[in-house]
Amino acid sequence: MNVLDSTHDPERRAWVPSAQAPDSDFPIQNLPLGVFSRGGDTPRGGVAIGDQVLDLRAALEAGLIRGEAAEAAAGPTLNRLMAMGRPASRDLRQQVSDLLAEGSDARARADDILIPISGVQMHLPSAIANFSDFMVSRDHSWRLGATKDAIAPLPPAFDSIPIAYHSRASSVRVSGEPVVRPNGQWKRGDGVHFGPTEALDYELELAIWLAGENPLGTPVPMSQAPGRLFGYGLLNDWSARDVQRWEMPPLGPFLSKSLSTSVSPWIVTAEAMIPFAIPARRAEGAPPPLPYLDSAENRARGGLSIALEVWLLTPRMKAEGGGPARLTATDFATMAWTPAQMVTHHATNGCNLLPGDLLGSGTCSGPTDESRACMAEIILTGPIMLPNGETRRFLEDGDEVIFRGRAHAPGAVSIGFGECRASILPAPPWPAA
Amino acid sequence: MNVLDSTHDPERRAWVPSAQAPDSDFPIQNLPLGVFSRGGDTPRGGVAIGDQVLDLRAALEAGLIRGEAAEAAAGPTLNRLMAMGRPASRDLRQQVSDLLAEGSDARARADDILIPISGVQMHLPSAIANFSDFMVSRDHSWRLGATKDAIAPLPPAFDSIPIAYHSRASSVRVSGEPVVRPNGQWKRGDGVHFGPTEALDYELELAIWLAGENPLGTPVPMSQAPGRLFGYGLLNDWSARDVQRWEMPPLGPFLSKSLSTSVSPWIVTAEAMIPFAIPARRAEGAPPPLPYLDSAENRARGGLSIALEVWLLTPRMKAEGGGPARLTATDFATMAWTPAQMVTHHATNGCNLLPGDLLGSGTCSGPTDESRACMAEIILTGPIMLPNGETRRFLEDGDEVIFRGRAHAPGAVSIGFGECRASILPAPPWPAA
Repeated sequence: MNVLDSTHDPERRAWVPSAQAPDSDFPIQNLPLGVFSRGGDTPRGGVAIGDQVLDLRAALEAGLIRGEAAEAAAGPTLNRLMAMGRPASRDLRQQVSDLLAEGSDARARADDILIPISGVQMHLPSAIANFSDFMVSRDHSWRLGATKDAIAPLPPAFDSIPIAYHSRASSVRVSGEPVVRPNGQWKRGDGVHFGPTEALDYELELAIWLAGENPLGTPVPMSQAPGRLFGYGLLNDWSARDVQRWEMPPLGPFLSKSLSTSVSPWIVTAEAMIPFAIPARRAEGAPPPLPYLDSAENRARGGLSIALEVWLLTPRMKAEGGGPARLTATDFATMAWTPAQMVTHHATNGCNLLPGDLLGSGTCSGPTDESRACMAEIILTGPIMLPNGETRRFLEDGDEVIFRGRAHAPGAVSIGFGECRASILPAPPWPAA
Repeated sequence: MNVLDSTHDPERRAWVPSAQAPDSDFPIQNLPLGVFSRGGDTPRGGVAIGDQVLDLRAALEAGLIRGEAAEAAAGPTLNRLMAMGRPASRDLRQQVSDLLAEGSDARARADDILIPISGVQMHLPSAIANFSDFMVSRDHSWRLGATKDAIAPLPPAFDSIPIAYHSRASSVRVSGEPVVRPNGQWKRGDGVHFGPTEALDYELELAIWLAGENPLGTPVPMSQAPGRLFGYGLLNDWSARDVQRWEMPPLGPFLSKSLSTSVSPWIVTAEAMIPFAIPARRAEGAPPPLPYLDSAENRARGGLSIALEVWLLTPRMKAEGGGPARLTATDFATMAWTPAQMVTHHATNGCNLLPGDLLGSGTCSGPTDESRACMAEIILTGPIMLPNGETRRFLEDGDEVIFRGRAHAPGAVSIGFGECRASILPAPPWPAA
């Protein structure tokens, strides 16, 4: 499954000049997939290359790519391609890489098949049938668990299973769409309060997009799990902490999460991530996973190294013409469970995972202070002091939150995830119209 | 919204003889909607009447019903009709009632438009985009809460909000489809165990199907909530209790629930339920709901009286030619929150509820011993003794669980919900193929 090929060759260069910039998120070794439209026309699949989008439908019509995978990827969502599984993604990747590589005749057709990213509108990459959210950062769990009256800050099953809950599919939105501050209810003093949340937070997560399908009642063993990983993106699991604390016992988070979830538009495929695989991490003292959640392949290459960042841009920063301030710098490498383990766990009971289903990794906090990946963790040591003198405990109306991600590995060309960003709009007045 | 009309007239009789039997679930005052096919042909909307299905597509093509609502209901799912909202349902109901009423000329076309229920296959009534499950029985919460080391058996927010969690949409199945016993992990003694669940349970719930749509960020006040209730059915929220106890802290149930969820095929519409509305229940000593979860309409008519039953048919009962044994007899009337309050709560944060979305009420346990609506509650007082000498703590392979429901009210013709039933298949061997 995870074999390097010519598409990963660090010497390969695209004929698109912007893709050759060393800081480009989208060199020819990346080739992330997304769905875009221009001027309100029909959404269709595209590949990011430098500062351009390769229009897969146009490339198909020009005869520059062909076959079932190319046709599936040129549709209005990527679900059809996702249903075809990893071999289809590999086939498409090879075709697109060859098309964009220096020396390809396709360069003569650049005007027909490339569109500047700045001129397109991005859409959700799949029609998401199901969204499940995990909690696999030991540091995130420990920091927040230790604030409660708990003898053991970690949930009892934390080292035994990748803990997760079902979240809301209908409220997932693509980067750029604003987030409305939710109204909600929580305990305040002796009474119960209702109004706009006063504790709106971000959670920096990895988005994991699924390929293939297992019928209901049929588990997915670890040997098959890598084949179910279509690709990765950035995910902001917006959270209303006051609502969350009140509603959680005993059934878990509900309205504190379903207000909105933002995802980055470009899916960095599992093929593109092969050079950035690392051994699965196991915390010191943690027991080994039970055999059904373990494999030699996973121990050797189940993890992923992805540097992840959160930036905050306040209305005052915008007014002052300043840039955003970095709140978080972390790495997915510190997670306690791998994406393959999440898939096998999720289907342990025979739950049918569908093509285009979305998993969130949970907040990707690491052990250092700068790697705290949500505000609830950061403010445990005091308010957030911003470079321009502003302070924050939680997000305010007008704040814009920006996620970035980038994978590095020795001998590999570094690739990026683009951005996941959204601004906060004020809560609607109540009673609602 | 909730006005009695000629379709509720207790004097009205169908020209279909079986619909006149006093114990029929489907007299002309009911007219539940479902999706069926026959011999593998295209699924389409139908209405149950006595022991027959009115084929809505055939009735449309015969010119016996007409208009946008009829066309929407004749499609392969009811989502389009659900999207049109309650007025469309009312229009369709009136047309169908007039068509089936004694004196209608349609009787001459009976052979073209009626099919015996025994000869059709039922399908899920909607393509379910989202499934959320509530917990609004005070008795269920109290009984199970009191078994833990808890000072207060009820969750702190129980009287303040209808507590709920997001559940899994992809694993919802229509009555009749078997349920595969799930594998899972849980704590046993000092170690962590993996294998087929040893505590497979049923949960008797009301299914609530939604109409209409609110855009993300736009709440649904109590005044609009009744218009979002399309109709009702029976729902079995199959639960693996050993898995559930282990995985729940702190994010709630996950694999213990997503193994499968069964729903009855016929949706008893909100229109049909108008005669069975009752005042919203408030437990003695419970504070009144905050104003945003309250309305005079809800206090007067927000509740529903529906008698609900669970029957168990074991392999030995089948072999002995015996009938099923009743395990539960309860009533939705004792629930602490109403369907309208569930809708308004669910959208408090602006969460967008879609046509065809499914809500589960949570286990409908009442205060009496016979009204305990899952095995986990029943066995608190000892194993279940069946009339043929068998005993049960939880479900065994081959067991079949059957839910029934029926609404009664003074001066109204009683209507039924049909059945929600499924049998348990053995767990698949692990490692899975």
